[in-house]
Amino acid sequence: MPPEASRFPKRLARVRRSLLTNGLEAVLFLDMNNVRYLTGFTGSDGAFLLGRRRSLLLVDGRYTTQAGEQIGEAGVFEYREKVAGIAEILAGWAVTTVGFEAAAVSYETYGKLKEKLPMACLQPLASKAVNIRMVKDEDEIAALRQAAALASRSLLELLPEVRPGLRERDVALELEYRMKRNGADGISFPTIVAAGENAALPHAAPGSRKLAADDTLVIDYGVVFEGYHSDETCTFVLGQASSPFREAYGAVKTAHDRAIAAVKAGVPCAEIDRIARDYLEEAGLGRFFVHTTGHGIGLEVHEPPRIAATTEVLLEVGMVVNIEPGVYIPGQWGIRIEDTVLVRERDCEIITKTPKDLTIL
Amino acid sequence: MPPEASRFPKRLARVRRSLLTNGLEAVLFLDMNNVRYLTGFTGSDGAFLLGRRRSLLLVDGRYTTQAGEQIGEAGVFEYREKVAGIAEILAGWAVTTVGFEAAAVSYETYGKLKEKLPMACLQPLASKAVNIRMVKDEDEIAALRQAAALASRSLLELLPEVRPGLRERDVALELEYRMKRNGADGISFPTIVAAGENAALPHAAPGSRKLAADDTLVIDYGVVFEGYHSDETCTFVLGQASSPFREAYGAVKTAHDRAIAAVKAGVPCAEIDRIARDYLEEAGLGRFFVHTTGHGIGLEVHEPPRIAATTEVLLEVGMVVNIEPGVYIPGQWGIRIEDTVLVRERDCEIITKTPKDLTIL
Repeated sequence: MPPEASRFPKRLARVRRSLLTNGLEAVLFLDMNNVRYLTGFTGSDGAFLLGRRRSLLLVDGRYTTQAGEQIGEAGVFEYREKVAGIAEILAGWAVTTVGFEAAAVSYETYGKLKEKLPMACLQPLASKAVNIRMVKDEDEIAALRQAAALASRSLLELLPEVRPGLRERDVALELEYRMKRNGADGISFPTIVAAGENAALPHAAPGSRKLAADDTLVIDYGVVFEGYHSDETCTFVLGQASSPFREAYGAVKTAHDRAIAAVKAGVPCAEIDRIARDYLEEAGLGRFFVHTTGHGIGLEVHEPPRIAATTEVLLEVGMVVNIEPGVYIPGQWGIRIEDTVLVRERDCEIITKTPKDLTIL
Repeated sequence: MPPEASRFPKRLARVRRSLLTNGLEAVLFLDMNNVRYLTGFTGSDGAFLLGRRRSLLLVDGRYTTQAGEQIGEAGVFEYREKVAGIAEILAGWAVTTVGFEAAAVSYETYGKLKEKLPMACLQPLASKAVNIRMVKDEDEIAALRQAAALASRSLLELLPEVRPGLRERDVALELEYRMKRNGADGISFPTIVAAGENAALPHAAPGSRKLAADDTLVIDYGVVFEGYHSDETCTFVLGQASSPFREAYGAVKTAHDRAIAAVKAGVPCAEIDRIARDYLEEAGLGRFFVHTTGHGIGLEVHEPPRIAATTEVLLEVGMVVNIEPGVYIPGQWGIRIEDTVLVRERDCEIITKTPKDLTIL
């Protein structure tokens, strides 16, 4: 067993306490990020059954060796067909009341489970109940810090080379190459490098458009490191910034700063969204802020809690969330400023490292 | 509208003919690959409603501009909350019998749809019914060819530089860099570069292990080009191949060749799997062939039909599938040989380009 294996019993104990109540005898996890979180298994397919006094990782033949190495052979069961394997184990355990992740199980898979487990009482667990990864432990925070630092370092290395004439895709390629050479296991999501009017599309894919003098440049990028993601957005200018752009940048930066200043334990996520949104409304830019203010980050780049008007979660110590207000003026330019913060008792710590004052490249 | 827009009306007409039968008045598509296939919209979130005489793409505010540019503003509806938006449109259309993709809709989303559409009759469509992308049209085949050619060219460029002393991750990084520089929009999946005993794990992640003399080297890699994926696996030797390895390589290559020789319209997918599996059984390697023989490829790297014993699909002209038998000797080495083929009336065409005879690097 790897030395860091000690984190898993703690996680299992906590999840058992929170989920195996109200008569629930076992929980079936099919979301592979939850499976990884609870077991350390990093494969892309499988299932994890958590009972009151036992647990088992189920994998197909491609993953038997890897699973045995990662969690110990005793904890692994090899199936030929997943749902049949799950049914076999549950029958052996003689448990009938089984919870499942309602958001991670398709209507089709649910139908198959019902068919193979006619006697079982399958209980959908709402996202709220199975958001087991919102509060990060020390190992996770360490990985998130390393991911963020590695990404920021790579961008700062590249910036001196970013100049008019390069295509958006060249910049994205060089950034991704540097991030991986610096130790990233992968990129967190396809890097966004959007110049000028392309920056007005919040999810632009980098293309053949060449950077030009005085262009706005939005770079939204991140890495995966030991399974954990980073995600940071910087908005630059290549030369002269127009005065409407400068004003809008100042407004987005203030919205970003105010939202971050409000982050601490006990504050509702919706309140953080409201602070950023109200400020941009006041600045006359509210209608150009077309997305929510942020999201949790961890084994997934976007995970609960959403920093949104409809989120009912209160921030807790150890949550790690992104704050990313933006404004997008169709046909002209866009601005997004995004940092990752670690929630503390009375404030938060910013773990992304690239400076966010307006930078002229 | 982009010039290639003409492909979409054809696809819509075909899908209407196949799905809007038996009283079904509309189909709700939530699988974003199906949405892209039917509309050309490349965003990562949204929904598409296909009615008998009309259709509508639903997106949130992040994607309104992009969707308007990609499919024309008239075909786009912006929602604040997806399920509420879907309910609003369906109410306006006054349709009640609505199919949905049972494999792409979570149990939780289904619950929300039921709640917001109390009068609707929601009909789960089995994967079989909504496998609308199995037969590729000319545009898709062209993109798949370009993806495969671009990937193979990049690997062939890199091979002269692959030598003992490099780490697996260095090889993966350089290959990914070359693929993107050569025009790939992204990589198809995290590149596998697995040396020696690591090659015995079918889904190994490239790590810090250094290539050594006489190592086996499995490289499984691919690109995304215009949304379409490539996927090819080559197994090399860095020096001297042991005679058990040579024998096994010959067996996997023969299994691969026989399976491909059998691919043509009308043949069951299960038959192709059986041919590869039987040959490896005969060669005494059956128990080391721990996965299915292949899969379809297109907007997803793994998509229907699976080339597996349990698949009931018959091959059709225009299907594009991967054939990838392999054997994995735990603790020693692994071999996988994978090509993508286009099904034709009487045979198939191999569209991946790297030679598969045993190559000593």
